[in-house]
Amino acid sequence: MKSLEDRILSEGKALSDSVLKVNSFINHMVDPKLMHEIGDTFAAYYKDSSITKVVTIEVSGIAPAVYTAEALGVPLVILKKQTSKTLSGDVLQTNITSFTKGTSYELTLERAYVSPEDHVLIIDDFLANGEAATGAACLVQEAGASIAGIGILIEKSFQRGRSRLEKNGYKVTSLVRVSKLAKGKIEFMQADI
Amino acid sequence: MKSLEDRILSEGKALSDSVLKVNSFINHMVDPKLMHEIGDTFAAYYKDSSITKVVTIEVSGIAPAVYTAEALGVPLVILKKQTSKTLSGDVLQTNITSFTKGTSYELTLERAYVSPEDHVLIIDDFLANGEAATGAACLVQEAGASIAGIGILIEKSFQRGRSRLEKNGYKVTSLVRVSKLAKGKIEFMQADI
Repeated sequence: MKSLEDRILSEGKALSDSVLKVNSFINHMVDPKLMHEIGDTFAAYYKDSSITKVVTIEVSGIAPAVYTAEALGVPLVILKKQTSKTLSGDVLQTNITSFTKGTSYELTLERAYVSPEDHVLIIDDFLANGEAATGAACLVQEAGASIAGIGILIEKSFQRGRSRLEKNGYKVTSLVRVSKLAKGKIEFMQADI
Repeated sequence: MKSLEDRILSEGKALSDSVLKVNSFINHMVDPKLMHEIGDTFAAYYKDSSITKVVTIEVSGIAPAVYTAEALGVPLVILKKQTSKTLSGDVLQTNITSFTKGTSYELTLERAYVSPEDHVLIIDDFLANGEAATGAACLVQEAGASIAGIGILIEKSFQRGRSRLEKNGYKVTSLVRVSKLAKGKIEFMQADI
């Protein structure tokens, strides 16, 4: 997605050979128009895939995912990073280690919101080592649903997330693929959409 | 907002005299169309208020807030509940105790994303005791910005959040005001919008 690549080049900050900061338009401040365009782009790609639900992981996947879900005319399910007082009943959980935050958490899904009839598109902001996406895919499958694909805004293609997901049979569609990061330098390779 | 009241009556679950579960359309599964309508409703109310940024608190405020921001033509800023590797530089923080989750966390704002020129609309899903909204308002003011109002999807009017915010000079605009909760019973009073 050219407009996302351009935005990363103009505002993204390569802090090291592995950390790309896009806090001015995705992760902390959010550009709603860009999120809308991203949602429309994923929805156009998956429009004939009989998606019944979009699933994302809190926090930064929510804005692009809600536009994707709206454009596809389906509900969004947000996987929670911790249990709360109002998560009750039959919940599925899996432990995730976050590369970015250096923490681990329990990814949680109330079984009521994903059923065996569902065909799911997973959306997330970053794909690095694939921990979060793998955990999300596992929860969706534990709920009995099938997965149409995993839509990623920014893939760090020099990390193992994509190959790990593909090895497990998941289709990965990334809007931007970063082939190389170095302090102050960002290089792209051909993206999927 | 009649459509939100109706949805709460049909799908909301009063789990006790203080906990209202709306996980099937706001907090866990999300209805994008309803979020869009909520965003348009807040934007119509605040359209002449010279808003320059919408600010919300992760997680459940994001979906309605991104539609509000888009309709107003301004960026959204998401206050983070913890620091991450990519939050760097000049950050403002305040400690919040969450009633719903029974936990406390550091609410964080990178100073770069809210400036003294900003006039801010704060959006959040629930208003109970006002801890989160008060913390958000303090961070925005510490950054030097002014606050046009605090837009709430569901206010629990029998708790002290609203009076606390109003006592501190904030304008509160709630789409739905719940006057009473009891197990299996939800009552409303006149809302602001």
